[in-house]
Amino acid sequence: MLTAEQIAAMVNARTHGDPGKTISGVSSFDDAGPKDLTFAVDHSFFSRLNETKAGIILVPNEAPAVSGITLLYSDNPKLAFFKIVAHLMPAEPLKEFIHPSAVIADDCIIGDSTCIEAHVSIGQGSTIGNHVHIMANTVIGKQCRIDDACRISPNVTLADKTRIGRQSIIHPNSVIGSDGFGFVQDGHAHAKLLHTGRVHIGDCCEIGACNTIDRGTLGITRIGNGVKTDNQVHIAHNVKIGDNTLIVAQVGIAGSTTIGRDVIIAGKAGISGHLNIGDGAIIGPYAGVADDVPPGNVVSGIPHMPHKIWLKVSRIIPRLPSLRTRLLSIEKRVKKLESSSTEQP
Amino acid sequence: MLTAEQIAAMVNARTHGDPGKTISGVSSFDDAGPKDLTFAVDHSFFSRLNETKAGIILVPNEAPAVSGITLLYSDNPKLAFFKIVAHLMPAEPLKEFIHPSAVIADDCIIGDSTCIEAHVSIGQGSTIGNHVHIMANTVIGKQCRIDDACRISPNVTLADKTRIGRQSIIHPNSVIGSDGFGFVQDGHAHAKLLHTGRVHIGDCCEIGACNTIDRGTLGITRIGNGVKTDNQVHIAHNVKIGDNTLIVAQVGIAGSTTIGRDVIIAGKAGISGHLNIGDGAIIGPYAGVADDVPPGNVVSGIPHMPHKIWLKVSRIIPRLPSLRTRLLSIEKRVKKLESSSTEQP
Amino acid sequence: MLTAEQIAAMVNARTHGDPGKTISGVSSFDDAGPKDLTFAVDHSFFSRLNETKAGIILVPNEAPAVSGITLLYSDNPKLAFFKIVAHLMPAEPLKEFIHPSAVIADDCIIGDSTCIEAHVSIGQGSTIGNHVHIMANTVIGKQCRIDDACRISPNVTLADKTRIGRQSIIHPNSVIGSDGFGFVQDGHAHAKLLHTGRVHIGDCCEIGACNTIDRGTLGITRIGNGVKTDNQVHIAHNVKIGDNTLIVAQVGIAGSTTIGRDVIIAGKAGISGHLNIGDGAIIGPYAGVADDVPPGNVVSGIPHMPHKIWLKVSRIIPRLPSLRTRLLSIEKRVKKLESSSTEQP
Repeated sequence: MLTAEQIAAMVNARTHGDPGKTISGVSSFDDAGPKDLTFAVDHSFFSRLNETKAGIILVPNEAPAVSGITLLYSDNPKLAFFKIVAHLMPAEPLKEFIHPSAVIADDCIIGDSTCIEAHVSIGQGSTIGNHVHIMANTVIGKQCRIDDACRISPNVTLADKTRIGRQSIIHPNSVIGSDGFGFVQDGHAHAKLLHTGRVHIGDCCEIGACNTIDRGTLGITRIGNGVKTDNQVHIAHNVKIGDNTLIVAQVGIAGSTTIGRDVIIAGKAGISGHLNIGDGAIIGPYAGVADDVPPGNVVSGIPHMPHKIWLKVSRIIPRLPSLRTRLLSIEKRVKKLESSSTEQP
Repeated sequence: MLTAEQIAAMVNARTHGDPGKTISGVSSFDDAGPKDLTFAVDHSFFSRLNETKAGIILVPNEAPAVSGITLLYSDNPKLAFFKIVAHLMPAEPLKEFIHPSAVIADDCIIGDSTCIEAHVSIGQGSTIGNHVHIMANTVIGKQCRIDDACRISPNVTLADKTRIGRQSIIHPNSVIGSDGFGFVQDGHAHAKLLHTGRVHIGDCCEIGACNTIDRGTLGITRIGNGVKTDNQVHIAHNVKIGDNTLIVAQVGIAGSTTIGRDVIIAGKAGISGHLNIGDGAIIGPYAGVADDVPPGNVVSGIPHMPHKIWLKVSRIIPRLPSLRTRLLSIEKRVKKLESSSTEQP
Repeated sequence: MLTAEQIAAMVNARTHGDPGKTISGVSSFDDAGPKDLTFAVDHSFFSRLNETKAGIILVPNEAPAVSGITLLYSDNPKLAFFKIVAHLMPAEPLKEFIHPSAVIADDCIIGDSTCIEAHVSIGQGSTIGNHVHIMANTVIGKQCRIDDACRISPNVTLADKTRIGRQSIIHPNSVIGSDGFGFVQDGHAHAKLLHTGRVHIGDCCEIGACNTIDRGTLGITRIGNGVKTDNQVHIAHNVKIGDNTLIVAQVGIAGSTTIGRDVIIAGKAGISGHLNIGDGAIIGPYAGVADDVPPGNVVSGIPHMPHKIWLKVSRIIPRLPSLRTRLLSIEKRVKKLESSSTEQP
């Protein structure tokens, strides 16, 4: 149970309406009841503030005041809302615990307050930091290093020598550090290249479920700090990804490509190998990127093109049949004009 | 060993030819031998009925009679055929059994005749129904509920609070209920939103291998009854999917989108977030859907468009170079006409 | 530590420069130091041979000699380089070992010098060859057969009756042999077809991480010898793939399609069901293949078309807005010409 006044103090918001109004839960704008806190992020909600049944609404500073509704004005209402969610539904504290079924090599170094669940395997020479949570049935190879406060979800596979920075999360069933797709023609067959590289993931990263991030062929596949990937993302050998880049579901990035900082790659986009995607670039959904993208550029489409052009192109594509019909008609009319112009003299 | 007459009785078919003809196996039309039952579903097979070596052929009622061939006329020959497959190759009955290596929290409720294989983990407060088969190395979180007669395949991860209706199948290595891709900008970094929602899957569903279905951010990601997904399907947070919808391999559905009943989404299609796809809609392969699709509509292409238009567009796209050449030629000819028309006076 | 002379003898190369020059490591062209061996594969490197700090460079026979640099001329410098990598970083020999936590059915046959790690499950009637490495937490069903010298990585699921030829590698978290996406309409619901087929994988194959290869509905899904798949590849029921075919990441192949030998399918391509892709065909990235592709053909695009045409089409697509503008302008000019030509008489 929190009052509007208490919430305002916790998230540095300004109260409009009843400071004593209380909530005990949180919900989305349309599902909320009178004992829920909710939030409204943009103009589309401002005319509907009286439509939610929420007891208290977190709004941005530019939102209008509505009499009879308790509003909390915040610089970042979504961030503030999720701080209250975390306050009301605190995560269970991690208990120091190693399940007896976990198989951990003798020479591993395991930090304090770390929890290792059932059926985990950890290979020789690996180091696990403090406050790390390794969930059930995860397999960690040899000589891995997992820094403090990481969470490795169930059924994850970390291949040998993988390194994960502190406070990072690996979601279930992801594979980090397996061999890249590297072969060399040897007569008719494809000879396997021995992969001796590894994967380094930075601090505060989040790797989605069923991701595959391949080790470098020789060197390192490097994921910067604060990088977040959605589910089913594929990152090939020797890719480098800059800090705070976001990669949405089902994206594929081919080998040796370098992605800058603060890049956004939308769902299902594909990026070819050996490219440079500059800092702050945005790649649209389903885009097929086969060339470098300069910093700050926004591109979409297959083949990729400036997003503004793609918006026009995507409106024209469904009209191609009628444009073709018009072209054929003009062709006929021009023929007619030509024949009449040659007849004239 | 079954006679044509016995099969006819089992699947309510009408016999043409020798009712005493026997088969002992089943096979596809082209691979069948004289002791096999096969089936022919459509007109393309009717002229070839004498090409299969099968002893007995299940055919639809409109199929022609062919002398010397034993045919069984059925309203649904494919369904009838697979009923006979199930009769000839009955699944082993599930044995009640909990492998001693399974780690099951003390307060879990486990139903009757349930089989839990090796290296399974089940978290606190979970309830498993009767006749459930939980296969090896699967991890089930806390407070999950799995209803009667489900099969959860190996290496699956079910996150906390996931609920699965009766007679549903989860194929191997799928992840149900992990956190969605939800962040909010906090200065330069992306702050994680605490995900407190869950996934509810209905009765008689089948979730393919390596699927990822994210929990709701706050509320519920809801999969209706009878929904079937193929492999490598991604369903984001707070998506709702109506009953009996089919989703083919490698489809991605972004957050908060609502899919109706009896929808078909073909392979590799992508659907953006916060959309409504109406009941009975059909989405073509590789389609990129960025707007609502009304009930019953059939759409294809990137960007998506009515399927009939896409069929035309897809025939024009490879001819764009020649259309462009024709356009340039017309342009020249018009220029010539213009110059001769201005010269004339 | 190896001298240029020693390396030349090991990989059958010809030495230019100092035959006594030594290296102790290997690295990529740009990262190499003076004690590293590197390699240069094509003309783009020939003008830069003095830019790498590598002590010795493996080059193709047509490379120029550069004075002061130790070069090794080889028919296949990349293959030669990775032979030296394997020499310098030999894999640990496999130790015969079965972890006590592995759960292996009584009637399984396990070969010599085979290593089975922790938390593995192997079902009844399975046969594992010699020198096989089954890594932690992998689940192998009933009546499987894994031939000599295979490596099955962690968290893999092999369904019943799967067969894997010798010297093949299955990367982590892949699923081989689960049910295909096969249903038949039964009133409003989709009745499941009982899948009784299986998957056979040939010798010397490599299956990437998070792949899904479905069993045949009745018969066999067959992967030829020497086939290599990248990560997140989906291969549906009853697909046949010929020897030495390469399939890049996130490709999907629908049911009953036959792929020839020596085919290359680039990343994210999709191939519809019941098609024939001929020997030696090449399918471009993101291609959507909905018809047969004859042997040796190179196709790209959605819809797929000859690659040479796609190159032209992909240059035209971003120019569609300007082409449309030109078409509209010509239309106007033709109208004007028509009106002036009818006025004239």
